[in-house]
Amino acid sequence: MSDFSAADIDAIYRVIAQRRDMRHFCGGQVPASTLRRLLLAAHQAPSVGLMQPWRFVRITQSILREQLYTLVQQERQRTAEALGERESEFLRLKVEGIKDCAELLVVALKDQREQHIFGRRTLPEMDLASAACAIQNLWLAARAENLGMGWVSLFEPDDLKALLGMPEGSHPIGILCLGPVAEFYDKPMLEIEQWAQRCPLDELVMENGWSDQTEQ
Amino acid sequence: MSDFSAADIDAIYRVIAQRRDMRHFCGGQVPASTLRRLLLAAHQAPSVGLMQPWRFVRITQSILREQLYTLVQQERQRTAEALGERESEFLRLKVEGIKDCAELLVVALKDQREQHIFGRRTLPEMDLASAACAIQNLWLAARAENLGMGWVSLFEPDDLKALLGMPEGSHPIGILCLGPVAEFYDKPMLEIEQWAQRCPLDELVMENGWSDQTEQ
Repeated sequence: MSDFSAADIDAIYRVIAQRRDMRHFCGGQVPASTLRRLLLAAHQAPSVGLMQPWRFVRITQSILREQLYTLVQQERQRTAEALGERESEFLRLKVEGIKDCAELLVVALKDQREQHIFGRRTLPEMDLASAACAIQNLWLAARAENLGMGWVSLFEPDDLKALLGMPEGSHPIGILCLGPVAEFYDKPMLEIEQWAQRCPLDELVMENGWSDQTEQ
Repeated sequence: MSDFSAADIDAIYRVIAQRRDMRHFCGGQVPASTLRRLLLAAHQAPSVGLMQPWRFVRITQSILREQLYTLVQQERQRTAEALGERESEFLRLKVEGIKDCAELLVVALKDQREQHIFGRRTLPEMDLASAACAIQNLWLAARAENLGMGWVSLFEPDDLKALLGMPEGSHPIGILCLGPVAEFYDKPMLEIEQWAQRCPLDELVMENGWSDQTEQ
């Protein structure tokens, strides 16, 4: 006896397979009720010690959107320089959809995280892992609703904190671009653009000890 | 026009809502074909710069399972001590299902991560975020297949690395307990056990700047 039918299971695997990190959006809107469903899906993620570390800042002011765009452009240039021989290849890629997406969300980890020890004494970064699970929930729910989403991590966190008045102990982890898209990429965009290739699964799975065979 | 029907969308939201961080398992087995589907779902996660940082070590030796159990018990005691006044409350909780789960997987971040700059120059922790998205995919797929999963982060990473012969630059992020369960918790176990309460969504969503109203 299962809670999910064969058709349900198929839908769940399909949404996992068809979710894409989108950079191309076509404006439009996300209805308030849809946005709330997506955020509730995020909030149903697991979290270490049930700390629920995720915070969402919805950006509705166009001046703030412009400033976020500028932050990302600055980091895009610095990343390009740091990449050395792949600089020009990187600069050809579209790395964000900030100006074209319907909704813009900044996701951050809460302030005063040091109060949460459960599951984090030796691995304090587990709150980020929990927040990433929340973002993945949002991503899958958005894909199911035919909305694209892109997670942008090209920014200087201190600059973003200053821009949004974030307290010292909080930490921004992503700018999410969300909204209608003309079409979904049929493969990861960085695979289409030949930035990197997918590893075969078998190279990533080991047994009873480390034996990583992937090209580093 | 959507790629997902209303019934599909409902199934996707249901699996997100009904996924649980499980600590109680009832032995049994996970068929090899099912385990492969789950790992493929994990491998379809997004990753920063398409770096695919996730590595899975399947534990099939019972001696290793015992040693992992011991590692977690050691950290459970240290965490209990670090929690101070909540020590005895914490020690009443079941925090792992290592001995009872059908399959045990250690998830780790790959070695030589410093070679990946795309999306990580200012936020090097983004590879953990990617791996957490992979684990959330696996978790949701497992729930769809009526299998429970628990993510255990109570261990000393250096001890786990030594146990599995992991290279210096790699980093273990979780011990996943996976397999059949007698039933799924109807709420997060830590909520049932009154370790913590769920925050209302509205307290986690802000607009155009930081205004966190949650109790810290």
